[in-house]
This record gives sequence, C-alpha cells and structure tokens, in this order.
Amino acid sequence: MKWVIGIDLGGTNCVVGAVAADGSRVIGDHSRPTLPRRGEAAVIGELIAMAKITIDEVKRADPGAEILGLGAGAPGPLDIHRGIVVLTPNLGWTNVLLRARLSEALQLPAALENDANCAVQAECWVGAARNGQCVIGLTLGTGIGGGIVIDGKLSHGASDAAGEFGHMVIDFNGPICGCGNRGCIEAYASGVNIARRAKEMMAAGQQSALTAMSDNDPERVTAMLVYEAAASGDAVAQQVADDTARYLGIAVANLVNIFNPDTVVILGGVIHAGDALFVPLRCEVTARAFKPSTDACRIVPGALEGLAGVYGAAKAFLDQRASGVI
Amino acid sequence: MKWVIGIDLGGTNCVVGAVAADGSRVIGDHSRPTLPRRGEAAVIGELIAMAKITIDEVKRADPGAEILGLGAGAPGPLDIHRGIVVLTPNLGWTNVLLRARLSEALQLPAALENDANCAVQAECWVGAARNGQCVIGLTLGTGIGGGIVIDGKLSHGASDAAGEFGHMVIDFNGPICGCGNRGCIEAYASGVNIARRAKEMMAAGQQSALTAMSDNDPERVTAMLVYEAAASGDAVAQQVADDTARYLGIAVANLVNIFNPDTVVILGGVIHAGDALFVPLRCEVTARAFKPSTDACRIVPGALEGLAGVYGAAKAFLDQRASGVI
Repeated sequence: MKWVIGIDLGGTNCVVGAVAADGSRVIGDHSRPTLPRRGEAAVIGELIAMAKITIDEVKRADPGAEILGLGAGAPGPLDIHRGIVVLTPNLGWTNVLLRARLSEALQLPAALENDANCAVQAECWVGAARNGQCVIGLTLGTGIGGGIVIDGKLSHGASDAAGEFGHMVIDFNGPICGCGNRGCIEAYASGVNIARRAKEMMAAGQQSALTAMSDNDPERVTAMLVYEAAASGDAVAQQVADDTARYLGIAVANLVNIFNPDTVVILGGVIHAGDALFVPLRCEVTARAFKPSTDACRIVPGALEGLAGVYGAAKAFLDQRASGVI
Repeated sequence: MKWVIGIDLGGTNCVVGAVAADGSRVIGDHSRPTLPRRGEAAVIGELIAMAKITIDEVKRADPGAEILGLGAGAPGPLDIHRGIVVLTPNLGWTNVLLRARLSEALQLPAALENDANCAVQAECWVGAARNGQCVIGLTLGTGIGGGIVIDGKLSHGASDAAGEFGHMVIDFNGPICGCGNRGCIEAYASGVNIARRAKEMMAAGQQSALTAMSDNDPERVTAMLVYEAAASGDAVAQQVADDTARYLGIAVANLVNIFNPDTVVILGGVIHAGDALFVPLRCEVTARAFKPSTDACRIVPGALEGLAGVYGAAKAFLDQRASGVI
C-alpha cells in the first residue's frame, strides 16, 4: 500500500501520522506538545523523531508499504513554492526552511502547506465536505482562519496568504482586533473573544454559573466553558453563544455571497456546541445571503477533529506532487 | 481572421461588437438603449438586429473573416450551463432561454455569462488586469457587483452566483440596503447611495455647490455630480468622496485578506474620479489588510470602459467553448 506521512505543526501540539494515499486510513496519530521555547532545531528534531516512529509503525503494519513522501502543515505566512515558513509569531520562527530540513532528515520528498488550508482540504478529501467542488472552510480557534477550495483545488492567492477570513470586517465601528483594525470577525468570535464577551457581561454585574464553574477566576473562563455553561442553561453564556452564532452568521453570509460555495465547513473546538451553534448560524445566513446561494450551500461541522491536519498535510503532498509545485 | 460577436445586454444600454479572437481589436461597437417595456421578444430582436449589422461589417472589413460564435453578457442570476437568464428584475425577465434564442437566430454557437463576470474577465484578457492570475473585480454602478478570476479562470460558484461583493456587510449596524440587510457595502458606495449621502448632508443644512449644480433639484444629485463638485473643491462633496473611498477601502481590504489577489480592478463610472478615489482607497487598504497581501496586490481602474462587456462576452464564448461548457 502507498502511504504519505502527515505532519501537523501547531502552536500547542504537533501531530504526526501516516495516511494511506487513497485517504482510506491513518496509522500512528502521535501527538506531542510543541515546545517552542526549546528552539527551532529542537521542535523540528521532535517532528523528525515522531515521523521516524510513524514510518516504523507503517512498515510493521504493512510490510509492503511504499512511503511516497511527507507533507507538513504549519501556521503562515509561508512560501509554499520554496517550502519556507516565512514568519510564525507563535513559534518565534522567521524564514525556516522547514520543507528541506524534513525532507533531508527523512530522505523523502516533502511538501509544505498552510495549516488552515490542510484542515479544509482534508475535510474535502475524506471529511464533511467530501465531494465539494467549491468549499469554504472557517477554522475557529484562538484566532480565526480559513481555506478556499475552488474546482476541488486549494486557492493560495498571489503570495500564499489567501483565506484570512478572521480579519474580514463586519463592523468598522466594532471592537478593536488583535490586528489593530476594528470589527474583524475574529474580534467577536475567536475563542479568546468569546470568553472576553462573557467576562465583560460578568464584570458588568450579570449573574452567571460561569463564576462558580471558573472558581471565580476570570482567567479560567474559556470559550469551551462558555458553551458548557450555555448547554446547562446559563443565561449569560447562552447570550454569548447566541451572539457568537449571529456574528459568525454575518461572516458566513458574506462568504456565501462572495463565493457561492457548495459547502461551508466550520472547524475547531467550538463545533462541539452542535445545534446550539449551527441552528442559529444557519438561520442568520439564510436571512442574510442571496437565496440562490444559500439554496446551493450546506453549512456543516468538520468531521476529522484532531486528524484534519495530518490528513490535509498528506493530501497537500499528493496535490503538490501532482501539480508540479514540488 | 477569427472573430467572436460580443453582446452586452445592460439594463440601460445594449452594446454589440465583433472582437478578434486574439483580443487585438474590436469592430462595430454599436450601442442602443435597452427598452425593456417593449417586452422580451423586442429586446432580443434588437440584439439580433445589432449582431447582424455587426457581422456584415466584419465581413466587409475582413473578407476572409471566420465568425466562431457569439457571447452574451447579461445581469444575473443566470444558469450558465443551460444558457438561461433565470431572473432579471431590471428587465422583468424570468427563465429566458437567451443563449438558444440568439444562437438559433444568428446560426452561431453561443455562450451566456454574467455581465459583471464579463467585465472583469475582459480586464484580465486585454485590460488593466492583463496577465493577472488571481483577480478580483468590483463593478460600481447603480448597484455593486463583481467577479472572481482564480488561476486565470472565472469562478462561478455552485450555482453561478459567485461575486456578489455588493452585499458584503461592513457594518451590521449600518444603513439599510436594498437587499433588506444592514450595512452592505452597496448601502454606502453604490451610485445611488453616494448621491444619498450627499443629499442627506445637504438636507441637514450643509452648504454645497451641489445645490446650484443640480438646479436645487435633489433628483439631479448623482454620484457623477458629487465627484464633479468634489473636483471643484466643494467641501460636502469632498467629504462624501472621501467617505466613499474609505468604505470601498474597507470592502477591498476584506477582499484582499480573503483572496490575496494579484490585482483588484475597479470598474464603473466612478473610476473617472481618478486619484481622488484611488489614493485614499489604496491608503485604507494598506492600513487594513495584511502586509503580505497588500504587497502582492495592485489596485487599478478598469481600462476598457464601455467595451469591457463586449470584450468579456466574446471571451466568455472562447472560454466556455474551450472548457466544454458549450
């Protein structure tokens, strides 16, 4: 069987697995914390060690295994054609030749791809957006990112920076975003800002179960905790969750009007809120976007969870090899 | 020489010309007012008559002329694969088999394409966005529309409705748009809304040269008149023009962050404002969008003026023939 090693380099965790070249299965799925303070060489060394373990596992599980190469997903901005991580503030990296270093150490051809692009492409390949031809993926985490698939292909833009959906302005008079502008969707609906809105309501004196749930420590109020409190009926948390769905609905409606996608796939921990997120979000999109576009579009949670990055990195290798990028 | 007939069916005017298949020249360029009240058959009859005159001209000018086919650009929503104008409120049309009717009457293979897509694709082919691979076009007129070119190809979306940039929300608390939502960019920066903002400032008692320029008739305050007054130093008109550039800058910054295009091309009468529009617009984009994306992107006025639709319709025929749509 043919295999591709998929490496998902995240700010918090690294995940490595071997993906069957037809997307049918994954072997390995090792996860370790990323320890950026140890420095770039140590982090890359760890990825290489995890990949070697994975390769050994594949060879044990499938004695006829052929390992075609490896794909690595990393936070941007990247230079995909040159295989370089241009800048990754979370890791403190600048102009790291990640593709070449992985390729040399593992003696395999390698590809580099943006992490959000990997996750979205994985959902198109074997996940919730399978068979989608025009797919918009929105990754909701500490920040908000995304990926664009048109005619089944990732759209990278002119300098590998396409898909920065988090900094779409939905209210130019809105709250200040980490990027310095006002009213980006990220300033409302990233994990940090979901928690911020709940904390602001509590600081304004509204009673909430979140106070007890966080042991009265505002630092412990996270987006996850807000959704947990909302599920148990807390009014403040429900308000925050409803507002989040509405803000995201405005952003998704913009994307639906812009792209007329067949699928919008939402990724990130917040999708575990399920209907509490998706029902009001879809309502907002239906109320706002053009009918021919909403009629053509399904809005779904991602299906691959923590493996999206590994699947997507492997797929990036296959796609970049097929299109001659590597 | 090989030629394609280009038909640009607009709400106000129809333009028909013959375009050399290499885009090097156009013959004809006939424009007549669209008279929708006469009914669909009369409007289509007029297009056919104009096309026949154009074909005769081509044959006179180039005795060896080979006419490959015709392309028609029309306002959407369309069904491009079936060649149908699904709905055109301005013309009062529903489910008109425009492609088949033109093709039969003129005995030529035919293609149908969205009018904004035609204009943007024309600019990519022979205009201001020439050689662009990832191009976003914004058409500013009575309404605001657009087109998306990725890897040199128009992106139509799942149901031929992609590119509705006019209904991107930039302030969800903003003024009500014709679509019923609040704060779409169209509610600020379409021709109608540029004039509206000037009239509101005048109605609030601000002195403006626009009063005399419009013979004190608010109906005669148009976006064009506002830019004329701004050019002659009128403070109210300058404020409106500055605000317009800022609003458009917010929308363009969103599109630059989303697509990371190599070119944003702005089309419509308002581009005649020149630097008065483009200088503050580019400033706003640079201040707002991500640097790797603004660095990669030029923001330019369209170069083809009234012929963009004809060139683009002809190109749509060539592209749809090459890709097997027709």
